[in-house]
Amino acid sequence: MAITGDQRLLKRINRMALVRLVRGHPGLSRAELAVETGLTKSTVSLLVQELIDEGWLCEDDVLVTGAIGRRPTPLRLDDQRLALIGVELGVGMIGVVATTLNGEVISKYSHSFTVDSEIPLVLSMLCRAIMDTVHATRGAGREVLGVGIGVPGAVQESSGVLCVAPNLGWRDVAIRDEVMRVLQAHSLGDIQVFVQNDADVAALSEVEFSPSSTHDPLLFLSLGIGVGAGVVVGGRLLLGRGGFAGEVGHIQLQPDGPVCSCGRKGCAEAFFGLQVLANSFHLSREQLFERASQGDPEVVSALRSAGQHLGVLMHNLWVTLDPAQIVLGGRSCRLGPAFLDSARETFNALAHEAGLETPLVVQAKYAELMVPVGASALVLHKYLQPI
Amino acid sequence: MAITGDQRLLKRINRMALVRLVRGHPGLSRAELAVETGLTKSTVSLLVQELIDEGWLCEDDVLVTGAIGRRPTPLRLDDQRLALIGVELGVGMIGVVATTLNGEVISKYSHSFTVDSEIPLVLSMLCRAIMDTVHATRGAGREVLGVGIGVPGAVQESSGVLCVAPNLGWRDVAIRDEVMRVLQAHSLGDIQVFVQNDADVAALSEVEFSPSSTHDPLLFLSLGIGVGAGVVVGGRLLLGRGGFAGEVGHIQLQPDGPVCSCGRKGCAEAFFGLQVLANSFHLSREQLFERASQGDPEVVSALRSAGQHLGVLMHNLWVTLDPAQIVLGGRSCRLGPAFLDSARETFNALAHEAGLETPLVVQAKYAELMVPVGASALVLHKYLQPI
Repeated sequence: MAITGDQRLLKRINRMALVRLVRGHPGLSRAELAVETGLTKSTVSLLVQELIDEGWLCEDDVLVTGAIGRRPTPLRLDDQRLALIGVELGVGMIGVVATTLNGEVISKYSHSFTVDSEIPLVLSMLCRAIMDTVHATRGAGREVLGVGIGVPGAVQESSGVLCVAPNLGWRDVAIRDEVMRVLQAHSLGDIQVFVQNDADVAALSEVEFSPSSTHDPLLFLSLGIGVGAGVVVGGRLLLGRGGFAGEVGHIQLQPDGPVCSCGRKGCAEAFFGLQVLANSFHLSREQLFERASQGDPEVVSALRSAGQHLGVLMHNLWVTLDPAQIVLGGRSCRLGPAFLDSARETFNALAHEAGLETPLVVQAKYAELMVPVGASALVLHKYLQPI
Repeated sequence: MAITGDQRLLKRINRMALVRLVRGHPGLSRAELAVETGLTKSTVSLLVQELIDEGWLCEDDVLVTGAIGRRPTPLRLDDQRLALIGVELGVGMIGVVATTLNGEVISKYSHSFTVDSEIPLVLSMLCRAIMDTVHATRGAGREVLGVGIGVPGAVQESSGVLCVAPNLGWRDVAIRDEVMRVLQAHSLGDIQVFVQNDADVAALSEVEFSPSSTHDPLLFLSLGIGVGAGVVVGGRLLLGRGGFAGEVGHIQLQPDGPVCSCGRKGCAEAFFGLQVLANSFHLSREQLFERASQGDPEVVSALRSAGQHLGVLMHNLWVTLDPAQIVLGGRSCRLGPAFLDSARETFNALAHEAGLETPLVVQAKYAELMVPVGASALVLHKYLQPI
């Protein structure tokens, strides 16, 4: 029987379903996978063998149980042969990591640039950093599955175009095409490239690399100079019509509040964006972190007030999205408990007034690496979601 | 070759893909469906014949084009043989409609009850109304595909339990099981029953019955005594962890604003919930509609201010979700332009301050029938999304 397009797609879906199952439940055997998926044992054996050959899965040692008969072989993700490359294009910095399929960081690299650099110059640095990491990763004997890039702005998913990144001052930059062109010119055209918003990929770092403890829907709040959200619902990113979903730093928290960099008044970011807070004390961001850690009373008092606004934002997003978990990430987390505890207290108090329980609130697992590791999670995400 | 569980699911998926294609593009032929789906012509012919036999599709007359050869037969949804039953359980009213697969209302019925009636009494009225409509619909020669019920509160999707409906004063009512039990006792146990939040089903009324003009993501704002949202993303409802997503009436628009019925302060609903507005003038809701339509200056001024708060809510949800379309529905739409135009103006002004364009904003297609027709859309939605 000839294989039709439909059957090829079905095969990809089934293969990736097997990878997801083994990822979520390491130790499953082929027979257990057949039960879980409803596929026949022979189909599972065939697909598992392909996945082993390609470096996705490997067999664990069989435990000697003393039971009679052939013992089932436990399977798990192979963390030795494949690699994911994740890139952060930040405001003034480029970060690159290579990770295993489990999100373990194998190598990392970062490089700063002046924010007003020409776009072609920054892209050329970006491509150079990617290619160096590809070569180093291959040199260490791993195959590169793909490259993910997290960027500080709205991305059109289908084209990989960065539509607008206010803090970089970029607009309509075809990042994916440009990176692919350069890779191709260097005989690396077989490597797939994916581009997505930084808060979105940060959300994926929580989902794709901790599958057994994942809470869906997941709301990731990225707190830094900009304030944005990445939302994962039913295993997928909530992107909106044009990739602009999650611009929650521009939710109005107060009519006629302080003027925001976007031109509107009373935006969340105008109350607790990291640069706004530093500016209010005429400090650099590093100086602000230092004063906060020293417990400077004036700074602590301002951070508590800023945290209250963050708590209201968390509340407003909670009633809108009903997430199972809220993750707080981004550089502003370094502002410490004066900021974060105050936010949680305000959030809890608002929920309590309505007789409701708040969802789980945690801090980002990958801390300052959340964007590059999230970008490598984006590659895995794209493979595991063939439709 | 034996049919496995997987193949049965694939068949259901393919069947419903054909229905969705024909619904979106009436007039498609079997050959065109084969091209669109990648299925073989013989598979398409087989599935289309099944769908015709079951009442989903029918053949249109072949246009005489003068071309040589056998002319392809155009297909369309059959609006004659199947029916969807949609129910609104409202605050003090029960509404029931039967519709065609295209959302055309075949029959409608409504009945009021006093809000503090015992739950079993209301459920028994509800079941009676459903059964009457089932019998009448069957009597008119149509098969009933299922019953959808829209309720004013959060619903746990998997169980059909209404978790909490503040305006009814109900909590943890197993509506689906109770209705199914009664249908079964009356030999109607073959009819499927689905329960969902009223704003969510209202959103589906826009999506399932206007597939060619659907804008996804779609944000439906239900404006009445309560203020809620139904959000459709990628063709699916955004429900949240426990069915509480879309409780946007409790987004805080102002710190220390007016006290809301939920206990919190400054909620959107405390600014422009319909009962709040009526109470502020010591009027009944009907009296408020009358004064608004007469252009009473005091009422108009208050409605313009209320509309500004609605505009801020629309803005806040827009930056969060980036919808392609916002639909305004619910009884508060009867407050007219003083309320609705003022909301649009505020929304547009906020977007303009940031140099951005707002998405399309329209009024609900089914107006006061949005919940029962939406509940019948829920039945179709469930059939068309087998996974």
